[in-house]
Amino acid sequence: MIRFLAAYDTPDDPEVFDRHYREVHIPLAKKLPGLRRYTISRNPAPTRDREAYYLIAELDWDNETDLQHAFQTPEGRATADDVAKLAPTDKVRTMVYELEDALR
Amino acid sequence: MIRFLAAYDTPDDPEVFDRHYREVHIPLAKKLPGLRRYTISRNPAPTRDREAYYLIAELDWDNETDLQHAFQTPEGRATADDVAKLAPTDKVRTMVYELEDALR
Repeated sequence: MIRFLAAYDTPDDPEVFDRHYREVHIPLAKKLPGLRRYTISRNPAPTRDREAYYLIAELDWDNETDLQHAFQTPEGRATADDVAKLAPTDKVRTMVYELEDALR
Repeated sequence: MIRFLAAYDTPDDPEVFDRHYREVHIPLAKKLPGLRRYTISRNPAPTRDREAYYLIAELDWDNETDLQHAFQTPEGRATADDVAKLAPTDKVRTMVYELEDALR
């Protein structure tokens, strides 16, 4: 399993961000080919003395080929472009990684 | 489902960090009562121009009561104390959030 993670800092206008995320971004991302799982954080809270991210989104594909393919489709480009509309680069951190089961 | 997430910046000595994480931290965390899922990132890569986290660990429980209980046990305190040994506060960001299925 391979995961795309986006961690968003608190936006300047949370209400505008939330509306855009719910009404535009989720519908776009749901169209990504091969997407197996898509979760977002609700009620994030820090556990130590650093601020929690405002929103963490995680999108999973079966393997890297499928993920790379998804982001090369028109749906993928539209979703990536929309991340840039949601947040400037210094307010969102994105990454891709393989998932390893530590309980195995 | 509720998730504890820890995002670690690149450590000063990755080899020491990796050994400690594999040989000490995972065995401790695996003892947490009620832990349903525990995944760690492999081969993290950034997708835009910000650095990827060195390691992302995610631990899931069925609900907040179970998570809070786990961290109040001796195993939970030992695991939390070990996070502080793995990384100073400014090199790790931890948070707890409920998981919402965006594909529903």
